[in-house]
Amino acid sequence: MAIEWAGSPPELLLALDRDAAGTLRSQLETGLRDAICGGRLKAGERLPSSRELARQLGVSRGLVQECYGQLTAEGYLCTRAGSATRVAPIRVHRPAEPGTRPPPPRLRVDFAAGVPDLASFPRGDWCWAQREVARTASNADLGYGDPRGSEVLRDVLAGHLRRVRAAVVESEHIVVCTGFAQGLNIVLRTLARRGVRRVAFEDPGYGDGTTMAAAARAGVEAVPVPVDALGLDVDALDASGARAVIVTPAHQWPTGVVLAPERRRALADWACERGALIVEDDYDAEFRYDREPVGAVQGLAPDRVIGIGTVSKSLAPGVRLGWIMCPPGLAVAVAEDKRLDDRGSPVLDQLALAALLESGRYGRHLRHMRPVYAGRRAALVDALARHAPGVRLTGLDAGFHAVAHLPEGADERHVVGAARKRSVGLYGMSTYRASGAAGPPQLVLGFGDLGETAVRDGIAAVADLLVY
Amino acid sequence: MAIEWAGSPPELLLALDRDAAGTLRSQLETGLRDAICGGRLKAGERLPSSRELARQLGVSRGLVQECYGQLTAEGYLCTRAGSATRVAPIRVHRPAEPGTRPPPPRLRVDFAAGVPDLASFPRGDWCWAQREVARTASNADLGYGDPRGSEVLRDVLAGHLRRVRAAVVESEHIVVCTGFAQGLNIVLRTLARRGVRRVAFEDPGYGDGTTMAAAARAGVEAVPVPVDALGLDVDALDASGARAVIVTPAHQWPTGVVLAPERRRALADWACERGALIVEDDYDAEFRYDREPVGAVQGLAPDRVIGIGTVSKSLAPGVRLGWIMCPPGLAVAVAEDKRLDDRGSPVLDQLALAALLESGRYGRHLRHMRPVYAGRRAALVDALARHAPGVRLTGLDAGFHAVAHLPEGADERHVVGAARKRSVGLYGMSTYRASGAAGPPQLVLGFGDLGETAVRDGIAAVADLLVY
Repeated sequence: MAIEWAGSPPELLLALDRDAAGTLRSQLETGLRDAICGGRLKAGERLPSSRELARQLGVSRGLVQECYGQLTAEGYLCTRAGSATRVAPIRVHRPAEPGTRPPPPRLRVDFAAGVPDLASFPRGDWCWAQREVARTASNADLGYGDPRGSEVLRDVLAGHLRRVRAAVVESEHIVVCTGFAQGLNIVLRTLARRGVRRVAFEDPGYGDGTTMAAAARAGVEAVPVPVDALGLDVDALDASGARAVIVTPAHQWPTGVVLAPERRRALADWACERGALIVEDDYDAEFRYDREPVGAVQGLAPDRVIGIGTVSKSLAPGVRLGWIMCPPGLAVAVAEDKRLDDRGSPVLDQLALAALLESGRYGRHLRHMRPVYAGRRAALVDALARHAPGVRLTGLDAGFHAVAHLPEGADERHVVGAARKRSVGLYGMSTYRASGAAGPPQLVLGFGDLGETAVRDGIAAVADLLVY
Repeated sequence: MAIEWAGSPPELLLALDRDAAGTLRSQLETGLRDAICGGRLKAGERLPSSRELARQLGVSRGLVQECYGQLTAEGYLCTRAGSATRVAPIRVHRPAEPGTRPPPPRLRVDFAAGVPDLASFPRGDWCWAQREVARTASNADLGYGDPRGSEVLRDVLAGHLRRVRAAVVESEHIVVCTGFAQGLNIVLRTLARRGVRRVAFEDPGYGDGTTMAAAARAGVEAVPVPVDALGLDVDALDASGARAVIVTPAHQWPTGVVLAPERRRALADWACERGALIVEDDYDAEFRYDREPVGAVQGLAPDRVIGIGTVSKSLAPGVRLGWIMCPPGLAVAVAEDKRLDDRGSPVLDQLALAALLESGRYGRHLRHMRPVYAGRRAALVDALARHAPGVRLTGLDAGFHAVAHLPEGADERHVVGAARKRSVGLYGMSTYRASGAAGPPQLVLGFGDLGETAVRDGIAAVADLLVY
């Protein structure tokens, strides 16, 4: 579709050479024809008005009108009375792009995990915050600021994390980043520069290669450490020889296990005794259901934990804002890496998030969402109990995904493939295992961005596949 | 200053253990006291209302009120009738942070370059665009999107760049990034993976180590190539053995030279003949004065040029949005690096920029700013002619910085130091030279964020230092 340039469209860069042989008119005609044939101007795009182009090029308006008339006669342009001159809908041959994939077929119900309810994004609050910021930000805020991020946001975030997550943190130890991926890249590069050579990650864990890719980019070795029913196996971690570990204690990704109290202490002890570092992905901490709230591990060992948090689950991934809570001794190095990486995250968004937090709108949104997710969770439990009673569900304490345990001997891949034929997106645990296979057959069911009806319909549509 | 939590302040995470020895009241008292002494709650911060905390902890409101009363009596809390209970202004001992530097003294006039007029940032337009986007963005836009960036923005950017910069580009070859620094990091990493081992950069060039740091991070060698009065020395480039070069053809940073037509062609020929790549920083292309507009070098050799552009000069650095125009064969690899780097840039900001471009507001802002910068440029020329007539000024064709040539034998560092004592920020060319020194004494004078009066006053205040 053609771009609908409103107001004055962007200037059209055309060079006329007054010393050249050809007349200005023939130069202009050729220039416009080339711009159309070469794809610089697309079918349907508005041209500058003859008055505007004449002014820009320093020629008479009549000359431009003559050119437009000639090119209209040749079929390159079209004009309607009272409307702008536009490029005619001619077909320019363009070779097909290699490597562009057709979009995957649409799913009727998609149990993909990791995405919150996008329809509930607080558009009004966000817009309010942006308006506040546009009104109140200082001019200096709009320049290249502190690469650690806006001081206003870091102050408010520190206060928020101290209260809600029992974190031990001051604003000068926070570095704002673009999300978990960037946070992890920055942290692993910083650790690599500090001499860390081996980093452990949870198995099952990020299946899309997030950890492995970040480790490879940072030049550190990534080793898997098993997760059991109590969370990360700290003895295995100790035996791995890693000097840092990436963990998701609040709601393990993807098993949904909450790190048991004795494991939390063992993990903190491991870090203190070995002089190692814990990278805590404070994933899904905002949404918990039946259980008592548990603070971040960071509060147990603030000198040994690097906390990474984002608003990707609490607001929306598209906001692309997160933060790194650094032990005091690492804050300067982490900030320097962020500076070299991208000079800091967008300032107006940071100030908008600060306004949401300080005004109470952020908290109100979380309180609004908790019963929404609780309802979807209940719908999932209910639908499975009704349609696939043999299938056990675990990992339901927090967040918006759970693990369905298929009968022994079930073929995970077959279930996933058969469900896809019914336009239902299911995801097997095997894709999140470091080995890529083996292990009991399980599904990771996300319900963050699925209404209760969709959850019920989706389970009903594939239930016969789950019970075997 | 205490954070002024409005509405319901964030939940205060406190754990009560009903199986423990101590009473709930003593546990709560201890928990609150620890939160204050440990710095989780700062002087002046609001506590939850007794009703809210009682609800959250599942205890009676009376018990919470008793605790608040006890801690008020002990001096930890203070209450005024009709107002929230707050943390009393007690002093908690905190050791001073090592490594925090005192802020540099404020300058009266700062000729720092590279920052546009921050007071002219179109706050109203930006706010309008954010409102439009909050209203019209689809829910899917708010999720993890295409790491290349919003298709809407890439379409509009491609159309804009084709018109304004005579670029040969389609939206599928654009990758949106967070600014020049991230763009360069992504590009150099991608080139390194393609086997490029040596990258040339302009000398003088980025003095803050941007290029060197990015090259070091990507694992490629960075070699300086001299810039003369016609721009980059292409023969020297060829002799350097580099297989890629980072250039600023529209207005060389920091000399302000516009790459001469014959050099542009020689540069494109070099890239084609050697199979090399040109990284074009389309710096300052938006603001040109006396001369004819010149398209991006990208349009001469779209298969051999990677263009990087940003809105840091046209809008403000704090927006943190830029784009990479890739040769078709590199687009997939660049997009994959962006994905691994940070999963994509903020979506709502991207859509806001698209709305500014398509609505004509972006172009209107540029047209509004051109005479503003032209006025400051004239003020600089005028002030130097009046107060320091021996000082020649070059690099004035575009952008908002220029180079002042000091008399032979002048001591650049002395001039900079003496000006600073008069609270005027001057910057010597030597800091931008790869060797770090030598070369004729010159100053790089930025006037983007300085009003005409400040320009005149600043020059008047240091003129005697410039004429020697």
